[in-house]
Amino acid sequence: MRINNENFRTIWTAPKGDIREHWVVKIIDQTMLPHRFEILDISSLCEMVTAIKTMQVRGAPLIGVAAAYGVALAMHEDSSDDNLAFAAQTLLASRPTAVNLHWAVQRLLRCLQPLPADQRQATAWAEAALIANEDVALNQALAQRGLTLLQALSAHHQGRSLNILTHCNAGWLATVDWGTALAPIYAAFDADIALHVWVDETRPRNQGASLTAWELGQHGIAHTVITDNAGGHLMQQGQVDMVIVGADRVTKNGDVCNKIGTYLKALAAFDNGIPFYAAVPSPTIDWSISHAHEIEIETRSEDEVATISGRLADGTLTRVNILPAGSHAANPAFDITPARLVTGIISERGICAPGELKQLYPELEAASHA
Amino acid sequence: MRINNENFRTIWTAPKGDIREHWVVKIIDQTMLPHRFEILDISSLCEMVTAIKTMQVRGAPLIGVAAAYGVALAMHEDSSDDNLAFAAQTLLASRPTAVNLHWAVQRLLRCLQPLPADQRQATAWAEAALIANEDVALNQALAQRGLTLLQALSAHHQGRSLNILTHCNAGWLATVDWGTALAPIYAAFDADIALHVWVDETRPRNQGASLTAWELGQHGIAHTVITDNAGGHLMQQGQVDMVIVGADRVTKNGDVCNKIGTYLKALAAFDNGIPFYAAVPSPTIDWSISHAHEIEIETRSEDEVATISGRLADGTLTRVNILPAGSHAANPAFDITPARLVTGIISERGICAPGELKQLYPELEAASHA
Repeated sequence: MRINNENFRTIWTAPKGDIREHWVVKIIDQTMLPHRFEILDISSLCEMVTAIKTMQVRGAPLIGVAAAYGVALAMHEDSSDDNLAFAAQTLLASRPTAVNLHWAVQRLLRCLQPLPADQRQATAWAEAALIANEDVALNQALAQRGLTLLQALSAHHQGRSLNILTHCNAGWLATVDWGTALAPIYAAFDADIALHVWVDETRPRNQGASLTAWELGQHGIAHTVITDNAGGHLMQQGQVDMVIVGADRVTKNGDVCNKIGTYLKALAAFDNGIPFYAAVPSPTIDWSISHAHEIEIETRSEDEVATISGRLADGTLTRVNILPAGSHAANPAFDITPARLVTGIISERGICAPGELKQLYPELEAASHA
Repeated sequence: MRINNENFRTIWTAPKGDIREHWVVKIIDQTMLPHRFEILDISSLCEMVTAIKTMQVRGAPLIGVAAAYGVALAMHEDSSDDNLAFAAQTLLASRPTAVNLHWAVQRLLRCLQPLPADQRQATAWAEAALIANEDVALNQALAQRGLTLLQALSAHHQGRSLNILTHCNAGWLATVDWGTALAPIYAAFDADIALHVWVDETRPRNQGASLTAWELGQHGIAHTVITDNAGGHLMQQGQVDMVIVGADRVTKNGDVCNKIGTYLKALAAFDNGIPFYAAVPSPTIDWSISHAHEIEIETRSEDEVATISGRLADGTLTRVNILPAGSHAANPAFDITPARLVTGIISERGICAPGELKQLYPELEAASHA
């Protein structure tokens, strides 16, 4: 994606000094957006785990790629069986809800475990880069599938500007490039379909207000930030034509686990007859579970609710506390939108009803029984 | 209510100097809570209009009382017919959605218009004080009605601590004393019913995090602040036993107009079979309209979404901007919860289904046709 007309991905590698196979991983520090655009060097497994935990990198697909690079950094440090197991364990524990992290770590393990230790480093870097490139390709394919939906909706509304509501950030910042929920929106904008995006601010971390608004703005797409409370009212008023969200994990029966608050928007869309889609590349589907209540919902620090970061009038970044002294907060980070509220899943192979994922990916569903 | 063990109302009068019938209106400045407890002197109609517009006083019942005192202040300045009409007009325009403001201003007009100008001032002060005292009495009656509901729920759950979710602030700060949605909660707490309150922070102005959490804390009631996104998940998890909200206006068929986001919580309560109540003293019922879409929904400044106020680590109060430069926000302040999602209305005369308000207040319904 373009930032100030320069092309960027959210994660990439660069040589570190002139030592062969000594790479550093570069990331955009997403905790500084939208106020500052800063690139960070990640040089060790430990730094990558911290970057994932503190959400310098976030978004299910990007977390998967970051974890793969984390394994590669670990293999540079020590490519023994013990360290491979340690790296996998540490990365898996860094964020519990997004399935892409498990998927990527398992893929690296399957790939590296059979190899002699001295071949693991090069293979790990290559496999991580492959996962990153695959993510870009998946999202481009997903974008084209979603584009057909938006073309049809635009035709239905005789070309008037479409109003699409999205929650949290499932844009290119949540992936390596293009995004999931926003990928069809970028494709539609580039295909000259008139549209406008309602951006839920997405408390507590405000990924909508800070990340989605920023990347849509960089791409020149009309958008308006709203509080998480406002979407239902806008739907009642006929000001929303479609909802598209991403997902952190989708069960094989189509329940969607996504950022806290997604369920409320799905209820409102259902109540107002507005189509509600989740944009889900296949690595986000967890074929091992049917029932969403099996998913571990991450609980994060109450500080994320109690304090909000932003910039002062002079541009300084700071954090303010909004709670009375002595009051406490709870911070569940995800919720489950049951398949019955989901109009369809947009994935790289096509668009299907939530219950039809098995038909779209029969080989993945079959492999889950193996 | 007690603040640091001293009894307070949210609005009261005090003599200004030693001139007969020269009163000043005292209010708690709610824009400084929960960080600072400050009392403001309001000495003119103009200052009262500003206090209402900037939400130094807010909450439908309190706005009504504040408007009545605004008329009294105007009569002190100039008790002519012209100034009475001007005061009414200015106050009615200050906030469009809460019906209590209309109700109180109309009541003052009916009371003052027949009088000679020189009798209006004393009568206006007396009538405003009467409305304030009536508000306290209404809320106490409503509290006792709601208490029966919480007693029954507590018995049903064999005395385990009840989890009640509320949105925005419908506590004593929204009224003269006791509150509406929180009044039954205070009554239940004082009657030794074990309970805990989930407090929606209620963006954009965070009246939940700043006002509801503060007043519950002052009263010693267990509470936890959550983002507006979290309530649906907590309901899915069985962690909410009842939802109680206030209202800015209720139509005669029981549609509830309340703070933006209320509708989303009502949808989630309905989806999870959780009782959803609105606590509504009779002056909040608008007998003149049947259909909620006739209610004017106030749109407030986008700055309320773009910026958040709070305190820095050193205690200084400040405002931070959370949006990317160039992004804009929309800020509808209320939404409509259709009667079909409302389990019941708690009012001073009893608890009824939303469609039965007419039977509970037959004389008010009849008067609306007069």
